[in-house]
Amino acid sequence: MDVLTVLNLGDFAQAFSKMGMFPVFDLAYYIVSILYLKYEPGSVEVSRRSPVASWLCAMLYCFGSYFLADIMLGSSPIDYFQYNSHILLASAVWYLVFYCPLNLFYKCVVFLPVKLCLVAMKEVVRTRKIVAGVHHAHHAYHHGFFIMVIVGYVKGSGVALMSNFEQLLRGVWRPETNEILNMSFPTKASLYGAILFTMQEVQWLPVSKSHLILVFTLFMATSKVVMTARHSHGS
Amino acid sequence: MDVLTVLNLGDFAQAFSKMGMFPVFDLAYYIVSILYLKYEPGSVEVSRRSPVASWLCAMLYCFGSYFLADIMLGSSPIDYFQYNSHILLASAVWYLVFYCPLNLFYKCVVFLPVKLCLVAMKEVVRTRKIVAGVHHAHHAYHHGFFIMVIVGYVKGSGVALMSNFEQLLRGVWRPETNEILNMSFPTKASLYGAILFTMQEVQWLPVSKSHLILVFTLFMATSKVVMTARHSHGS
Amino acid sequence: MDVLTVLNLGDFAQAFSKMGMFPVFDLAYYIVSILYLKYEPGSVEVSRRSPVASWLCAMLYCFGSYFLADIMLGSSPIDYFQYNSHILLASAVWYLVFYCPLNLFYKCVVFLPVKLCLVAMKEVVRTRKIVAGVHHAHHAYHHGFFIMVIVGYVKGSGVALMSNFEQLLRGVWRPETNEILNMSFPTKASLYGAILFTMQEVQWLPVSKSHLILVFTLFMATSKVVMTARHSHGS
Ligand SMILES: [Mg+2]
Ligand SMILES: [Mg+2]
Ligand SMILES: [Mg+2]
Repeated sequence: MDVLTVLNLGDFAQAFSKMGMFPVFDLAYYIVSILYLKYEPGSVEVSRRSPVASWLCAMLYCFGSYFLADIMLGSSPIDYFQYNSHILLASAVWYLVFYCPLNLFYKCVVFLPVKLCLVAMKEVVRTRKIVAGVHHAHHAYHHGFFIMVIVGYVKGSGVALMSNFEQLLRGVWRPETNEILNMSFPTKASLYGAILFTMQEVQWLPVSKSHLILVFTLFMATSKVVMTARHSHGS
Repeated sequence: MDVLTVLNLGDFAQAFSKMGMFPVFDLAYYIVSILYLKYEPGSVEVSRRSPVASWLCAMLYCFGSYFLADIMLGSSPIDYFQYNSHILLASAVWYLVFYCPLNLFYKCVVFLPVKLCLVAMKEVVRTRKIVAGVHHAHHAYHHGFFIMVIVGYVKGSGVALMSNFEQLLRGVWRPETNEILNMSFPTKASLYGAILFTMQEVQWLPVSKSHLILVFTLFMATSKVVMTARHSHGS
Repeated sequence: MDVLTVLNLGDFAQAFSKMGMFPVFDLAYYIVSILYLKYEPGSVEVSRRSPVASWLCAMLYCFGSYFLADIMLGSSPIDYFQYNSHILLASAVWYLVFYCPLNLFYKCVVFLPVKLCLVAMKEVVRTRKIVAGVHHAHHAYHHGFFIMVIVGYVKGSGVALMSNFEQLLRGVWRPETNEILNMSFPTKASLYGAILFTMQEVQWLPVSKSHLILVFTLFMATSKVVMTARHSHGS
């Protein structure tokens, strides 16, 4: 009976770590990310004044982690734009969040039960991104422990790490602070996550990757759901 | 008779789209670009105080589109500096515009008939750059429609898209605006051009590339000549 | 007797130009670089408030020249992070400079005779970096004279060329100046050095590389030692 439970948990962790993210989880990621963009002061005015700037910011919010990781590994920063379906899906979300008549879409997704569900799903994607980033860096630099941590970190933190420049695109400049000087919860957690997954990748942790994914996802999702329910959030 | 006209137009468009740009048209491009740099407030003082900074800005004005496109496609940003003859020609223009005794060179090229001619020639080069950018991106990402548009766009817009950082090099910082938030005519036209040439490249437009080049060049040249004659300009 | 001296000088220059930099000379480079970081106003507060930001700045001070050169040549900007022993050594120096009890380490290394010795050793490393940068660029672009000069220049100047962005990481923003607009002595000397070594690399200078390295190192070390002894310094 006890063995059975362990087996089932292992199977579940395995299945969970292999589950496809597109389109359902990715959609949740895009919705929550673009919501956070809409919360930024002045972003609605930008969407009226310059749709191109607003769309670019939305893409940074959705795909910033890919841009940063591709820069870090010396690839084309806009490499991810080749995935037309992801870009179109995120663009549709951007359109609905900013231009939907009566603000209907926005009102639906900020309805608390819906939002908490989306926020939890976003953390599933974030964890996967960290893992993929560490794995990608490990492939490129077999003993580059620092590179693995950095790439995992930027994959988890995404647009937050380039918030100064994302704000500049919207005409806002706040040099006195940045995400590294004042880390928010998700950025800090991404750093610890990147360190953990790097240790797992180079086999310094006696734990399987699927279990670590499951535990880290649960921790992130729970934390963010609780924080969102208490009206405090970070991207 | 009618068939003959069509044939001739096709031949002309073909020849026009194959015409070499170096050195005559490129020279016109460099002259007009560095003129715009000289129009920037404070740029003459910078040329006295730090020739290296002034020269770097001039290079950004002349080759910014190549730097940006190379960054976007993950190549070396200074890849274009390998073309010594282009760099030397642009450097000679920079020297003449900023340091020619009696400001003689400047006075010659801002003489309106000369300037209008140069401005028209610059648009020939711009169109070619957009086409080359879209083609290059198509080669790297066969189905990357967004990447083709972005690369064509940055090839057409050039330094305008990095004006905040070009200004920073000269000690000027204006974060409240940027070229994406407030698009000038050439930037906007480059975006539409990049979309058109991308549609042509992936064969969604029932028109030959050489015809499209001819029509787009004529449109750009006419518009910029009229705007320059009326003393309103953008890079 | 005279021939012997020449032979011996040639042998010495040869041996000097092949001497390994790691770990002794690199250590001196890290110590002096991180000392300069500690001299920056506000950097001690940053080290208390956000060790991650302080560590990143220290890495930029120690390895900024590699990051810039890798960007210039289109590689991964964090490529150098694969050298774990270098990163760990620099991190240990950063830790000792900022967090050593009683500020003991700092007090030892700023003791003038020690500091002058370290400063001289730093210039040995700087010269080698310029040479390696020019050589690396020559390998990638056989006739790219401008690229060789640029890569040698950024390898010699390092973090100084990105000081605006390094300061931004610490929450400081001074757009009215930058290292290209107001070149300090080491930056200017690196530019001339890069030009000299490029001319040597493409065989326009009738002098061997090892002799040029020896002469340039002696010039740099003497200048910086004199400047440091007179309490005026630049990175
Ligand atoms: Mg990639
Ligand atoms: Mg190229
Ligand atoms: Mg490298």
